[in-house]
Amino acid sequence: MTPTHRDTKQRLKSLAFQRSDCALACTLDLIGDKWTLLVVRDLFFGKTRYKEFQASAENIPTNVLADRLKKLERFGMIEKTAYQNNPVRYAYRLTETGRSLAPVIQSIIAWAGEHIPGTRKPRAK
Amino acid sequence: MTPTHRDTKQRLKSLAFQRSDCALACTLDLIGDKWTLLVVRDLFFGKTRYKEFQASAENIPTNVLADRLKKLERFGMIEKTAYQNNPVRYAYRLTETGRSLAPVIQSIIAWAGEHIPGTRKPRAK
Repeated sequence: MTPTHRDTKQRLKSLAFQRSDCALACTLDLIGDKWTLLVVRDLFFGKTRYKEFQASAENIPTNVLADRLKKLERFGMIEKTAYQNNPVRYAYRLTETGRSLAPVIQSIIAWAGEHIPGTRKPRAK
Repeated sequence: MTPTHRDTKQRLKSLAFQRSDCALACTLDLIGDKWTLLVVRDLFFGKTRYKEFQASAENIPTNVLADRLKKLERFGMIEKTAYQNNPVRYAYRLTETGRSLAPVIQSIIAWAGEHIPGTRKPRAK
């Protein structure tokens, strides 16, 4: 079931105070790892299915992908709808809250463009 | 020894292609965890010493702090100078490359301000 906007706010609030009430620390509890924002990147480029995320160049391990999708859904960043039954398969999509991470991702990409030679801006494939 | 600007570029380049040449993936190899940007935050607020980082509200474990300082130094984000001998103690400071992470941190804080109720902007203590 897709969380409502209020659910999302409440769940995101539960992130706060895990370590401190610092805005940076709380957000890192949600996206502070090597994979979450890569899944969000793929969703921005129109990927929706499990196998599509797995096909990205970084070779995300299947258990990590399952965990990150679950976490993103729990905090209202993505929503899923079944596109197939027997076995059930889901399509994932960014919510408005998820899409609002765009400036964070853009600032990281801009930083890399300036400081890490040889990197390329992510693009749809 | 403080790495030169060219060293830093070369070392940051070694981050590239660990998983892919994607600017986002490469940067997450450097700062994609729950702690690195909190140490950078503390450095922005003028903390310089090991015990000062440990005193922050998030209670960073000592081995994690040591690891993150080492990594930030290796990639030219911070530099250290001994302020005491016997035993030797270091003061850490952001380099220009480290300070250039400010927009990334600001975008994360702005996101949290919009989406995670109850969080506060980090401030000097």
